[in-house]
Amino acid sequence: MTPRVREILSWYGADNPGTLTNLARLMNHGRIGGSGKLVILPVDQGFEHGPARSFAKNPGGYDPRYHIELALESGCNAYAAPLGFIEAVARDYAGEIPLILKVNNSDTLYNPKAPISALTSNIDDALRLGCTGIGFTIYPGSTDRKQMYEEIAHASDEAKRAGLAVVVWSYPRGEQLSKAGETAIDVIAYGAQIACQLGAHIVKVKPPSSHIEQEAARKVYESEKIKVDTMTDRIKHVVDSCFAGRRIVIFSGGETKSTNELIDEVKQMAQGGGFGSIMGRNAFQRPKKEAIELLHRVQDAFAQAGH
Amino acid sequence: MTPRVREILSWYGADNPGTLTNLARLMNHGRIGGSGKLVILPVDQGFEHGPARSFAKNPGGYDPRYHIELALESGCNAYAAPLGFIEAVARDYAGEIPLILKVNNSDTLYNPKAPISALTSNIDDALRLGCTGIGFTIYPGSTDRKQMYEEIAHASDEAKRAGLAVVVWSYPRGEQLSKAGETAIDVIAYGAQIACQLGAHIVKVKPPSSHIEQEAARKVYESEKIKVDTMTDRIKHVVDSCFAGRRIVIFSGGETKSTNELIDEVKQMAQGGGFGSIMGRNAFQRPKKEAIELLHRVQDAFAQAGH
Amino acid sequence: MTPRVREILSWYGADNPGTLTNLARLMNHGRIGGSGKLVILPVDQGFEHGPARSFAKNPGGYDPRYHIELALESGCNAYAAPLGFIEAVARDYAGEIPLILKVNNSDTLYNPKAPISALTSNIDDALRLGCTGIGFTIYPGSTDRKQMYEEIAHASDEAKRAGLAVVVWSYPRGEQLSKAGETAIDVIAYGAQIACQLGAHIVKVKPPSSHIEQEAARKVYESEKIKVDTMTDRIKHVVDSCFAGRRIVIFSGGETKSTNELIDEVKQMAQGGGFGSIMGRNAFQRPKKEAIELLHRVQDAFAQAGH
Amino acid sequence: MTPRVREILSWYGADNPGTLTNLARLMNHGRIGGSGKLVILPVDQGFEHGPARSFAKNPGGYDPRYHIELALESGCNAYAAPLGFIEAVARDYAGEIPLILKVNNSDTLYNPKAPISALTSNIDDALRLGCTGIGFTIYPGSTDRKQMYEEIAHASDEAKRAGLAVVVWSYPRGEQLSKAGETAIDVIAYGAQIACQLGAHIVKVKPPSSHIEQEAARKVYESEKIKVDTMTDRIKHVVDSCFAGRRIVIFSGGETKSTNELIDEVKQMAQGGGFGSIMGRNAFQRPKKEAIELLHRVQDAFAQAGH
Amino acid sequence: MTPRVREILSWYGADNPGTLTNLARLMNHGRIGGSGKLVILPVDQGFEHGPARSFAKNPGGYDPRYHIELALESGCNAYAAPLGFIEAVARDYAGEIPLILKVNNSDTLYNPKAPISALTSNIDDALRLGCTGIGFTIYPGSTDRKQMYEEIAHASDEAKRAGLAVVVWSYPRGEQLSKAGETAIDVIAYGAQIACQLGAHIVKVKPPSSHIEQEAARKVYESEKIKVDTMTDRIKHVVDSCFAGRRIVIFSGGETKSTNELIDEVKQMAQGGGFGSIMGRNAFQRPKKEAIELLHRVQDAFAQAGH
Repeated sequence: MTPRVREILSWYGADNPGTLTNLARLMNHGRIGGSGKLVILPVDQGFEHGPARSFAKNPGGYDPRYHIELALESGCNAYAAPLGFIEAVARDYAGEIPLILKVNNSDTLYNPKAPISALTSNIDDALRLGCTGIGFTIYPGSTDRKQMYEEIAHASDEAKRAGLAVVVWSYPRGEQLSKAGETAIDVIAYGAQIACQLGAHIVKVKPPSSHIEQEAARKVYESEKIKVDTMTDRIKHVVDSCFAGRRIVIFSGGETKSTNELIDEVKQMAQGGGFGSIMGRNAFQRPKKEAIELLHRVQDAFAQAGH
Repeated sequence: MTPRVREILSWYGADNPGTLTNLARLMNHGRIGGSGKLVILPVDQGFEHGPARSFAKNPGGYDPRYHIELALESGCNAYAAPLGFIEAVARDYAGEIPLILKVNNSDTLYNPKAPISALTSNIDDALRLGCTGIGFTIYPGSTDRKQMYEEIAHASDEAKRAGLAVVVWSYPRGEQLSKAGETAIDVIAYGAQIACQLGAHIVKVKPPSSHIEQEAARKVYESEKIKVDTMTDRIKHVVDSCFAGRRIVIFSGGETKSTNELIDEVKQMAQGGGFGSIMGRNAFQRPKKEAIELLHRVQDAFAQAGH
Repeated sequence: MTPRVREILSWYGADNPGTLTNLARLMNHGRIGGSGKLVILPVDQGFEHGPARSFAKNPGGYDPRYHIELALESGCNAYAAPLGFIEAVARDYAGEIPLILKVNNSDTLYNPKAPISALTSNIDDALRLGCTGIGFTIYPGSTDRKQMYEEIAHASDEAKRAGLAVVVWSYPRGEQLSKAGETAIDVIAYGAQIACQLGAHIVKVKPPSSHIEQEAARKVYESEKIKVDTMTDRIKHVVDSCFAGRRIVIFSGGETKSTNELIDEVKQMAQGGGFGSIMGRNAFQRPKKEAIELLHRVQDAFAQAGH
Repeated sequence: MTPRVREILSWYGADNPGTLTNLARLMNHGRIGGSGKLVILPVDQGFEHGPARSFAKNPGGYDPRYHIELALESGCNAYAAPLGFIEAVARDYAGEIPLILKVNNSDTLYNPKAPISALTSNIDDALRLGCTGIGFTIYPGSTDRKQMYEEIAHASDEAKRAGLAVVVWSYPRGEQLSKAGETAIDVIAYGAQIACQLGAHIVKVKPPSSHIEQEAARKVYESEKIKVDTMTDRIKHVVDSCFAGRRIVIFSGGETKSTNELIDEVKQMAQGGGFGSIMGRNAFQRPKKEAIELLHRVQDAFAQAGH
Repeated sequence: MTPRVREILSWYGADNPGTLTNLARLMNHGRIGGSGKLVILPVDQGFEHGPARSFAKNPGGYDPRYHIELALESGCNAYAAPLGFIEAVARDYAGEIPLILKVNNSDTLYNPKAPISALTSNIDDALRLGCTGIGFTIYPGSTDRKQMYEEIAHASDEAKRAGLAVVVWSYPRGEQLSKAGETAIDVIAYGAQIACQLGAHIVKVKPPSSHIEQEAARKVYESEKIKVDTMTDRIKHVVDSCFAGRRIVIFSGGETKSTNELIDEVKQMAQGGGFGSIMGRNAFQRPKKEAIELLHRVQDAFAQAGH
């Protein structure tokens, strides 16, 4: 156990030893194990965008074994996916890599005004499949936020009693937010804070832009001179918003982009104090060799940034 | 136990021996038992379309005994029906053929904008009636998809713990899908993927057309040159979308049609890697002798296709 | 136990001996006990239409004792009523006549677009009050049909485990049905089929008219030449629609009418294979002596029709 | 135990000895104990109308002790109030007077189209606070009647199993009723019948007017010549509508009015066979001495009317 | 135990010794412990307004340790916060200060017409984290008030059985209230009464204005000459509305304002009989030294007012 992992675990004083053990497993697995940084491979796009849009570009990905092998071969800290994909590999790869069961999911055959995911699996599923934690998406800003917050509160309560880690994907979206507002720095920081207040161990947000969405927030960003010009500044502000850095916050890769753009962005995130990346399409839609190289560069960027 | 059945069972590593036993029962029963292919007789049309539209053409079918006898005499792998029809035959035909209890149903005395079936029976019913599995219809694309996915997640969770097989009828339908879109190749493949991700053991979809419904999907079908011109191509793509063929996917017969058209279509499905057929009206609305001949030809088409 | 009652019980092979015992009690009680026919006195009009509209014409009926005594004195097979009326007589008349607890009810102080009854009592009430079964109203065609089917599925499941009989009043009604359609032959037959598929032991429908409501049904009624001209024809078709006569289906008396009209209608129902009548207002709104005479004539019509 | 109380208890043959004991306690307490009549002091106006509107006129009433002392000193049969008011006195006045916990309540900071009260306490609260029964308001005619009837069915079921008495306040109100219709004789009688059919032991309604609201009812009131001209006539009809007088029905005082008007009305109610009064604002908004005098006159009016 | 604390505890005769113990802990902790007055530090603004608006002005506040230390160093009676903030400090500060877990929360990324908070934690959380009580916000006047009252009724029931104290934040708000009406004296007093009737041990409201919102109330305020001109008058009226002073009612600080304005207001509240303050932004957004001075002055104002 490295001093840094031990330090991070000390922030979670309300959790039982079971949950601390699983948080430690997540932090200690893979190429950058022990650094306190995390690079996770998530594959829920088959559910979220459909199979062709997700896997046709690199058709090996139709097979659920492809992704867990990519996560293993690239030395990621964990692999996250919905029930079907996890059930398809849990026995054959038992104990090889920490698994995160994505317990709620959305699809895009219907696009609602009030986004909310469906609860497609549960804590008992996570336990019988040997997972280290659950993943849960919330959409702060949605008309249905009350229901969502109560669903994660319930799932999180059960998960914590069962000694699992709770990872919350926080994606602000809804009627009173503009499209640009979904990644505005004030909104992303607020979404991260909400996830922390809901009791998440690990929060996942999108990389924030310098846009400020809410007028009440803008006044404060200006009067208090909160820096939001560079990605590094913004990541620092998001990390602050996660209990002054005492909750793990990681960032998605977003839309597919070139390797160099991606690595540039990742380095800024690492410099800002980000705890890592969760990178799906940017990884599994490339040929496996390229994907592994990319994931290694991402891991290195975070591991080398220190804290 | 044939090597093929053993191979198929190996894909379901997360399931308990009870469920594997029932999956084996389904695959080992009937004329093509052991081939890894399935031809199932489903009779829920009395509920879905009413008694006259379903049974008047071949009035023997008003009697629930008719259908299970047809399934038995034609050597089908299983018989699927709603609670009333199963209760009416379960004792007298106990142990003669695997039964699938259709646990949700819709009728057409009211046609809603947001399709969703009612939960008309449950896992305890399936167990007390000696069923091997449950059948469940989802309508991806419906406004009520969250509720439906949670209902199947709950029923599936209970069924798996009770050692039952879970068969999901996946029929995309809803406000944002056109009529043609309901059987579009991208939509059918997506609906099949969703059912797999929800943890279905066996997925049932309609035969897909070459129409592509969603713009975001069309770009990928074109750029990645996914073949969708022939039924064989399309079935292959749907099989790929079911975890690269590692989940059983079977196809409905659709509207009543001539025997030759039907057999042509079935052969293409078999050639594309489809695991079988689920054929209701095309079977029970013909005189029994003709129905048995038809079902034999369908069974043979699948059994002879190999894998 | 007569051979006919034994034969009817043989149709319910999925039920436990407790439920068979209660079905036998219903069929064996009263003047036509053992014939396999049923005449039941139902009194839920106080709830459904209000006390004055129900009881002012024959004011003895304000008293809950009046109705159970009418049922006893006229030799009916059973007495059906909501919680309040049953609670008011259950101890004093314990064991004198089979009771059916009507577990859901509607009133007419508010007339909704989407009809659905309220669950006003439950299976435990039926047991503590010594009832032989529960009565439940569904409105196929209502926007709220999903909720209703799930409520009856749940109540029926509990009732069957507790050894009670399940009687379903099936009254199609809703936004997409015309007023005439509510008693159209296709709709009544469909409503009866739905009740059977939901697992009802006994189905109660209104006498069907020769009107055909749904276009998709009309084609079949015409092409298959289903006879619907006489009440006898129509009753036969409804009986067919109840699992080819292997579920008990009985008919209501409808609006108050003259004795001769009523007896004429009843005779046609009996000739068509109907299993009996459930007659409320036509009975309890007449002077008791007349009511008893009427009920005897109804009972005789069914008992003499044979099967 | 007086013969009259014993007679009344005999009407509740479905209830357990616990509930009979509590009904007897209600009937045997206070100045007119044993007469079979009931005068109850209810104080839920703080919740329903706010503290100033309820208590400013007689400011002693801000203190929860005031009301239970008024009930005691005036010799009422029972005191009814919401959770907060009962919790505030239950220990200090334990065993001194029967308490009725009002388990649902509404406030008037929002006036909805579809009236329905909130469940603010439960049967366990009633038991831990030593209450003899629960009070429950229904609004027949409300769009939300199904939910309300199911809430009272559930609460009543629990209460009866726990040996408590069930008092239902039945206030018809809703979109399809006019303001005058809320106290129309046909509507009040119907509301009383519904409460009885729902299994209430004691029903509380408003004094009915001679207005007839529903056309279908008017025909019957006219053809059957139901008398509704005097309050005595109307009360008699409401008593008839409560199972021909075999359920206890009591009447509210309504809006504050002069003592003489009030006593006149009460005497007519008593003469019509009403079982008593439930009188809040008319009592606690007067100086205590006057209130006690008034309550004594009300009690005397009922006790002297006989039955 | 001071006589005053003992007196206050005597008002809660319905509560078990566990709850009395926790109420005593709240009253006995801190600089004014034993006085029967309470000054509480609440920090839920990160959830309610977002991290930047809450903490940027005094950035130490991003760290959850800052606030509990401020509460400790300033000698507050208790510290109240949502799950995340409490989990982050509960182990390291175990036993140092009474904690109140705020079990429901709202955010402002979506502003609904019908305000209602989400249940973000529960009674088991409060127990495992060593809290003395739960905090709960209701919005009387909201379209969703029924749901809210039932949620607090349920949480309060569980909390009381577990020996916890129940603190209700009562903020009237909704479609039928004007903006000014939210703090109108009639509305604030009504909101306080509702919280008391719901069974709250401690009620928290905003300082009332002299505006009167509801016409039905205005008549009474005028006819009964209820004084509402000064803050002292109004606080007295609110205290009266809380069971004539037999429930603890405390007041928020509202919008950030100057120290002198704030202390003036607090002194009037103390003079009117208010039991204390709950002061968030006015405290933690100042430099810590200033905040401690302010909180001391507030505490002194209440402690010196006597009762």
